[in-house]
Amino acid sequence: MSFAERLRVGPGFRLADVDPDSTPGFDGDRKDGAAALAAGEPELDRLQELLFANTEHDPRSVLLVLQAMDTAGKGGILRHVVGAVDPQGVHIHAFKKPTPEELAHDFLWRVERELPGPGRIGVFDRSHYEDVLIGRVRQLADPAEIERRYGAIVDFEERVAASGTVIVKCMLHISSDEQRDRLAERLDRPDKYWKFNPGDLAERALWDDYQAAYQLAIERTATETAPWYVIPANHKWYARLAVSELLTDALRSLRQEWPPADFDVAAQRAALG
Amino acid sequence: MSFAERLRVGPGFRLADVDPDSTPGFDGDRKDGAAALAAGEPELDRLQELLFANTEHDPRSVLLVLQAMDTAGKGGILRHVVGAVDPQGVHIHAFKKPTPEELAHDFLWRVERELPGPGRIGVFDRSHYEDVLIGRVRQLADPAEIERRYGAIVDFEERVAASGTVIVKCMLHISSDEQRDRLAERLDRPDKYWKFNPGDLAERALWDDYQAAYQLAIERTATETAPWYVIPANHKWYARLAVSELLTDALRSLRQEWPPADFDVAAQRAALG
Repeated sequence: MSFAERLRVGPGFRLADVDPDSTPGFDGDRKDGAAALAAGEPELDRLQELLFANTEHDPRSVLLVLQAMDTAGKGGILRHVVGAVDPQGVHIHAFKKPTPEELAHDFLWRVERELPGPGRIGVFDRSHYEDVLIGRVRQLADPAEIERRYGAIVDFEERVAASGTVIVKCMLHISSDEQRDRLAERLDRPDKYWKFNPGDLAERALWDDYQAAYQLAIERTATETAPWYVIPANHKWYARLAVSELLTDALRSLRQEWPPADFDVAAQRAALG
Repeated sequence: MSFAERLRVGPGFRLADVDPDSTPGFDGDRKDGAAALAAGEPELDRLQELLFANTEHDPRSVLLVLQAMDTAGKGGILRHVVGAVDPQGVHIHAFKKPTPEELAHDFLWRVERELPGPGRIGVFDRSHYEDVLIGRVRQLADPAEIERRYGAIVDFEERVAASGTVIVKCMLHISSDEQRDRLAERLDRPDKYWKFNPGDLAERALWDDYQAAYQLAIERTATETAPWYVIPANHKWYARLAVSELLTDALRSLRQEWPPADFDVAAQRAALG
């Protein structure tokens, strides 16, 4: 069974039942995982080049959405998985606290602007899901508006998918204990201070509320066209391998070939001399 | 003598005197070059992380400008040199034929918008130099306007550098014969057709005009604050190694350290539990 089949959220999904220490679909240890990640890179690289090569011929694209609690490893995914492909073909956007201009628009306005163009892999480091996660937990909008957003997200993603974007939504799932250890490391190592923000502890104090918000967001927005994958992430090597496999699957699903020449090859060859 | 010292354009520079087959500052062959490139990656990676880590503390950035005749290897630099660092900290922009909106503005308008922000490495795949290269060769503007642009570029780069951006301008220099071979490969291999454009041959027919335009652009805009480096590029491995070293030098020149904690570490550590 593929990583995709094992990790895809289905009916009756319960986040609390996913063991963050588990490694579904993979038997090995950290070293095996790193080897499997490296072994998959040539195919990922080739598929990304095919996508890019078809930019003028095929409007399709791939969008990888990364959501997680702090320290769960989004940065490592960007560095080690997304970083394995040609950066020319990738558009990464980190969604931060909305600006006043962004807040003056509907919550999806800023998201629409960062969608990948034809031939591109788009990566969202956080996303519109924050608007039903921190938005819910911190009551940044009234309950009716939060409620409206789930449906708006489903409609939005449906439209994005219909325009040719394969959407892969990943939640990296760590345990509360693992987060404590990782935050402690950031406080123990001066070369990691910059990754720490005192606000992180305030968010951590709301752990259970966030887990409930994730449960709700995932169950309300896991659709056929824009599935959610919940990835146990206490083992960084496993999360990287799993996301790499999911991204590779998404690219494979496009079944692309090298685009045909849109010029007379023999004539050009003769003209070149 | 460092790559930078050997490759930096100085007074009396003549492009025609640079041998595209040479490998200044490096004695080895392709294999040694690839090993040297790989050996330099950890430092490049660390320096880029330092730059990124200092985003909130230090407004500085690095801008790598890549110019070259078709097939000279810009794509390989993006993939193998820029691709070696964390993609979160890199902003690549490929300047294409200007849109009508861009043409309605001064030629530097679209360039200004793509400058790297604090803590970022910006990479220009082609740049404002096209406006004095193809602009001159194809007479896309009248001679007085082309003439004005050299000074405008110097002033612009002076201002960008003063705002804290270290500018590294690289011209990848191949021979006409090498370009023919590389274009032939694109016409001989169906997996490379997508990289070929019939317009490439029309540009190639103007080789000497382009070389003259490069000579002029480089001599008019090679300044202390925004130096030009002309990199022999018939050997792809050499060009990659050289650009990697130049980028590393630029980052080193910032002399950054891990930023200090802007919070009370002990108090946060105690609060974490």
